[in-house]
Amino acid sequence: MLELVIGNKNYSSWSMRPWVLLKHFGIAFTERKLRFSRDPQSPFHTELARISPVGLVPVLVDDGFAVWDTLAIVEYLAERHPEHAIWPRERQARARARSVVAEMHAGFGALRQHLPQNIEARLPEVGARVLAEQPAVQRNLDRVVGLWTDALQTSGGPFLFGEFSAADAFYAPLAGRLITYGIALPPELQAYVDRLWASPGVAAWVADALAEKDFIDFEEPYRQQA
Amino acid sequence: MLELVIGNKNYSSWSMRPWVLLKHFGIAFTERKLRFSRDPQSPFHTELARISPVGLVPVLVDDGFAVWDTLAIVEYLAERHPEHAIWPRERQARARARSVVAEMHAGFGALRQHLPQNIEARLPEVGARVLAEQPAVQRNLDRVVGLWTDALQTSGGPFLFGEFSAADAFYAPLAGRLITYGIALPPELQAYVDRLWASPGVAAWVADALAEKDFIDFEEPYRQQA
Ligand SMILES: N[C@@H](CCC(=O)N[C@@H](CS)C(=O)NCC(=O)O)C(=O)O
Ligand SMILES: N[C@@H](CCC(=O)N[C@@H](CS)C(=O)NCC(=O)O)C(=O)O
Repeated sequence: MLELVIGNKNYSSWSMRPWVLLKHFGIAFTERKLRFSRDPQSPFHTELARISPVGLVPVLVDDGFAVWDTLAIVEYLAERHPEHAIWPRERQARARARSVVAEMHAGFGALRQHLPQNIEARLPEVGARVLAEQPAVQRNLDRVVGLWTDALQTSGGPFLFGEFSAADAFYAPLAGRLITYGIALPPELQAYVDRLWASPGVAAWVADALAEKDFIDFEEPYRQQA
Repeated sequence: MLELVIGNKNYSSWSMRPWVLLKHFGIAFTERKLRFSRDPQSPFHTELARISPVGLVPVLVDDGFAVWDTLAIVEYLAERHPEHAIWPRERQARARARSVVAEMHAGFGALRQHLPQNIEARLPEVGARVLAEQPAVQRNLDRVVGLWTDALQTSGGPFLFGEFSAADAFYAPLAGRLITYGIALPPELQAYVDRLWASPGVAAWVADALAEKDFIDFEEPYRQQA
């Protein structure tokens, strides 16, 4: 049996990716949510320390065997569930999907730092200010636009590589940030964001995040200032 | 036919990983080296722009099809060469190898920033100073010690997951930094570093790096100061 250990749904972008993937493909799992905390005695730190040497979420636990780090979790699920096209079935599309997923895994640092995930917030004035002040965030955004445009044109859509795959799960949190911070996109890409947001795994996560109502001050650099 | 596009061998830790893997497993490829440069008109930037939308090395080109980002390249090679155990053959060992590879791909930021790859330099005084001044580098190092110890104890060695795999290729540049910056390890781990350094793919890269003798000032924060 699979258990996915996650952080707060409103804030945890890494937790969102494998959760959305499991849900989208209807793979059975239970969820264990650990509230983010900076207190070393909190369940977040003490419970995580028992299952992972890294102390970050997400962690997938398969009958007692822990797999940490989102990308390793996704590869593990793809091997465990060959009946689902978690990666595109076509060889070059699969390679391309892995390239853009690896880019997300190691990159987009400025965008992730300055526009942290906050699904239930609407902060367009923060988005406008950050884009004006942080050229590195604008460069990250230009790359997202290029990458999504290429992928959608090559595959013909509706998702990045045709049917919904791990690549869409990996970029779903970024789509959420564009919504939170009111960042405008070319119409074809806005249509992709809308499809992604309406897809069943993503929609289920977003509904839970909106119902969560658990404000954590150190995850709220902008609303605290306001 | 495979071509691997890389940066300077003395400095480019990301390029080193797939090159070492290809060499170790005797997979035929040609190498195209682009000298690092900050000049947008340099071959590094103009040639890379023609083959990859990201502008970073390494890039693997398979008959005109480009795969960028180290982790995507490794997965591509593992699929293309099932005759080689690029990932461990055993399922849980493979999952664990992917977890620690994903950790390297996205992590160890402090260590990578403060102790940049420089295979032909010997800078133990810099290593001592950085460890004393940068607690985040010490924490990265503690994690490496924990991770290598766990993997070697579980597998029995001689490499992290038994035979040499992608995980060893991913940690080889880090082993090189420990050598460059004179950082001491427990004896079992020093023995692992020695085995890794003597393994054929790694040794071939190191020999080329030593022969390169191409000093690049912006890759030399420490020797320039000296
Ligand atoms: N590379 C990791 C990153 C995971 C990560 O950074 N998780 C964050 C939450 S989204 C976390 O656990 N933070 C808690 C902390 O730093 O104490 C992965 O892909 O799983
Ligand atoms: N996540 C990328 C990182 C690649 C990377 O950062 N490459 C460096 C050299 S080791 C680079 O190309 N730097 C050139 C530049 O930034 O202009 C990968 O794994 O391939």
